[in-house]
Amino acid sequence: MSSKDDISVAVIRRLPRYYRFLGELKKAGVVRVSSRELSERLGLTASQIRQDFNRYGGFGHQGYGYNVEKLHEEIGKILGLHYCYTAILIGSGNLGRAVANHVLSEQGGFELIGIFDKKESLTGQMIREIPIRHVDGLDEFCRENRPKVAIMCLPEEAAKELTPQLIDMGITSFWNFSSYDILLDYPDVLVENVHIGDSLMTLCYKITW
Amino acid sequence: MSSKDDISVAVIRRLPRYYRFLGELKKAGVVRVSSRELSERLGLTASQIRQDFNRYGGFGHQGYGYNVEKLHEEIGKILGLHYCYTAILIGSGNLGRAVANHVLSEQGGFELIGIFDKKESLTGQMIREIPIRHVDGLDEFCRENRPKVAIMCLPEEAAKELTPQLIDMGITSFWNFSSYDILLDYPDVLVENVHIGDSLMTLCYKITW
Repeated sequence: MSSKDDISVAVIRRLPRYYRFLGELKKAGVVRVSSRELSERLGLTASQIRQDFNRYGGFGHQGYGYNVEKLHEEIGKILGLHYCYTAILIGSGNLGRAVANHVLSEQGGFELIGIFDKKESLTGQMIREIPIRHVDGLDEFCRENRPKVAIMCLPEEAAKELTPQLIDMGITSFWNFSSYDILLDYPDVLVENVHIGDSLMTLCYKITW
Repeated sequence: MSSKDDISVAVIRRLPRYYRFLGELKKAGVVRVSSRELSERLGLTASQIRQDFNRYGGFGHQGYGYNVEKLHEEIGKILGLHYCYTAILIGSGNLGRAVANHVLSEQGGFELIGIFDKKESLTGQMIREIPIRHVDGLDEFCRENRPKVAIMCLPEEAAKELTPQLIDMGITSFWNFSSYDILLDYPDVLVENVHIGDSLMTLCYKITW
């Protein structure tokens, strides 16, 4: 098994795809899957898939394939989905609500414990069973509940303004949907950026060529 | 310059990142940028960046860096952002609205010309200046307006049910936010999938390790 630092970003980014696809197979009642089948469906070479898995110990492929349920579970553990990191959502616009519903329904790795918005008219509204709070209450909420992750669904300027406060309040990780580049100003926090526009540009490229 | 088929998915996926970052530099008034500076900010090696650019003709790096505005424009052209592909959005829930606002405000490559939802109570509501129509009117709308791209912001089952109709109506490309795997059933259409959950799992991995 490789140590964490030896594992490339590309390998790490393939893990969620494996996990998701194995989840689909499991749902469909498939018991075993070969690396060839995985490769065909995921558009990767079978040897790349075997290499990826070997970095984490190999998962006991025995010539006739992997046990779907076991492999799904093992990859979930590697991803840390059995943990329950507490998260708060900042920004309850359309995107924030869509993201909240996603986190609340998928339930892997994170527990959403608070939703904040600067619009006073939204205070007290519920998203599923979580009330929207005013951002003025962030400090007190964080002192009491110690969330570790902030989900940033707010505009660039607002994100930039709020980030230092969030870090002061104990937030160490960001799931960032804003276009503010958090790592540029705070290189020591963990950030995962989502740029849905990149995907749209990729589609544009595919159509054009 | 390489032919289209020689260019790997990994290179193509870096183009939107270059384009986005160059756009930020341009906005900040930066005139020239070296491949070293690009590499530091984007977490890629300078030689990888030069290789990527060389595939498209090199963009005239002259020892003292690239012209930001020109490079931004050139990469935009490669991405096809000067085209205007007509798109329809299916599903006007929170995610659909967030995506519609994105497409309508960013305006690169696509024009959103119609929004559809199966909920009758939403028919006639406006998102920006586009009315939500009932899905029953899709066929007629497509015959009259010939959209090429469908943005799928609806649940898996509904997406699966609607996809063959959309293809019959002339849709050739999908920006797919649903978990339905369009390419598995229709390998000849163009699909760009967005799985925001993959990004959340990656964050979970980063926090865990």
